[in-house]
Amino acid sequence: MRLATLRTADGTTAATRVDDAWHALPYQDVGTLLGDPGWRDAAAQPGAPVEATGFAPVVPKPDKIVCCGHNYTEHIRELGHELPTHPALFSKYADALIGASDDIESDGSSGMIDWEAELAVVVGRTLRHGDDDEARAAIAGYTVANDISMRDWQRRSGQWLAGKTFDRTAPLGPALVTPDEAEPRDGLRITCTVNGELMQDARTDTLVFDSIRLVSYISQFTTLRPGDIVLTGTPGGVGVARTPARFLMPGDTVETAIDGIGSLRNTVRSIQRKREYR
Amino acid sequence: MRLATLRTADGTTAATRVDDAWHALPYQDVGTLLGDPGWRDAAAQPGAPVEATGFAPVVPKPDKIVCCGHNYTEHIRELGHELPTHPALFSKYADALIGASDDIESDGSSGMIDWEAELAVVVGRTLRHGDDDEARAAIAGYTVANDISMRDWQRRSGQWLAGKTFDRTAPLGPALVTPDEAEPRDGLRITCTVNGELMQDARTDTLVFDSIRLVSYISQFTTLRPGDIVLTGTPGGVGVARTPARFLMPGDTVETAIDGIGSLRNTVRSIQRKREYR
Repeated sequence: MRLATLRTADGTTAATRVDDAWHALPYQDVGTLLGDPGWRDAAAQPGAPVEATGFAPVVPKPDKIVCCGHNYTEHIRELGHELPTHPALFSKYADALIGASDDIESDGSSGMIDWEAELAVVVGRTLRHGDDDEARAAIAGYTVANDISMRDWQRRSGQWLAGKTFDRTAPLGPALVTPDEAEPRDGLRITCTVNGELMQDARTDTLVFDSIRLVSYISQFTTLRPGDIVLTGTPGGVGVARTPARFLMPGDTVETAIDGIGSLRNTVRSIQRKREYR
Repeated sequence: MRLATLRTADGTTAATRVDDAWHALPYQDVGTLLGDPGWRDAAAQPGAPVEATGFAPVVPKPDKIVCCGHNYTEHIRELGHELPTHPALFSKYADALIGASDDIESDGSSGMIDWEAELAVVVGRTLRHGDDDEARAAIAGYTVANDISMRDWQRRSGQWLAGKTFDRTAPLGPALVTPDEAEPRDGLRITCTVNGELMQDARTDTLVFDSIRLVSYISQFTTLRPGDIVLTGTPGGVGVARTPARFLMPGDTVETAIDGIGSLRNTVRSIQRKREYR
């Protein structure tokens, strides 16, 4: 099953893929759909094909986005670190999310915009203090993310939040794919290209902490609920670790793909500082 | 003006203080009230006195809780660090919040529960890319928080999130106090006692980055909106920095107070691991 949040002339709608078309579901978005305990049955009753204008973030406004850093063996090595005993977790606010084809907004305040292709987990049921079996069952499915990072802001202190949650920078989508269609533990190829040049190329079974372990671990300290998102970390090949270091500039296009799950294509766009004060 | 979110037999209500009593406002909580651009006028029209059963977190479910670490000179020194050039920012999820007299829940998974008395800023208008003047005007007021921290979980990786966001551990309240009643830059006394013993005692004008600077800085990377919370960091005297180190145990009572703003009184209570899987 593939589920997406589509933009239409009348706002967003949840949709399910039938053959080559997206069909409407009577929910505003995938987050709302997953909040219905009967979401699997509801998603099995597709309505009319949707006339979409594009993909919204697959869950537009998750309550929690929990991100794991340093989780692929070779990315840890390229940064010169030891393998971790516990996941390095930080968060991102929902305002950071963009759709699968949206522009990555750059307001000019960072000169070190970097890519981080990531497998994202979408939570499908409430979980607290869950063991591995419960964590597995709490995973609705997977999608693709790019945890675009402002390295200068990220490294201004030991805490990464500021560099990880610039508004409208992190694509999430295009669709939630259930584990029966694509299982990351089987080793799906994950890639990131910049203007067509391959920068990251790894397999999703080389995570130090896999999706199930992360979901179980996070549920030990906080409640995970339907629509919450877990970003599982990025493999080697990020710009800051290259020699010489390389960063994204306005006009650059980043493609992020996981075999069997989907792909994102996002272009960095220079924006005016959108002063808001109201 | 003092605003609180009170628990009643029928759920929560926003309320404003008139003389010695809380009077109802026609909003579910202070977060909802602040979402009304006319909140100042609305709050000036108190309804009937409220029969309250207690304080909810002053904003029960903020979209964003942004926390600053290492922000009081002597706390930085007790930890052996240099004064920072930029704020160390991390986040906390709304599930961590509790009311001014609620128990701090301990599920037994941390043996290093520590206190962190903090001044909290409540955002009162939308702000993005704001300068200092706009940041000042975007502050609805101040309240008291204790950024209760599980030091073992906090230090399992370089990123603090896990140790900072255990569900139902962080009191926030009792009331939002507008700057005309209490101005932290004037140097308000902030204290934390454990079972009556004074552990932290500082003044709110010894912050490296004050409330206005923090709000302006945060608004450079993400949009702040009414009801969002900024925790401004804790002064010296935390348990982990004492010799010998000292942590909270079930039954311990933590009182957190800021002169002119208010005080929290919370007791650590041992809870069963509340397994949830539904």
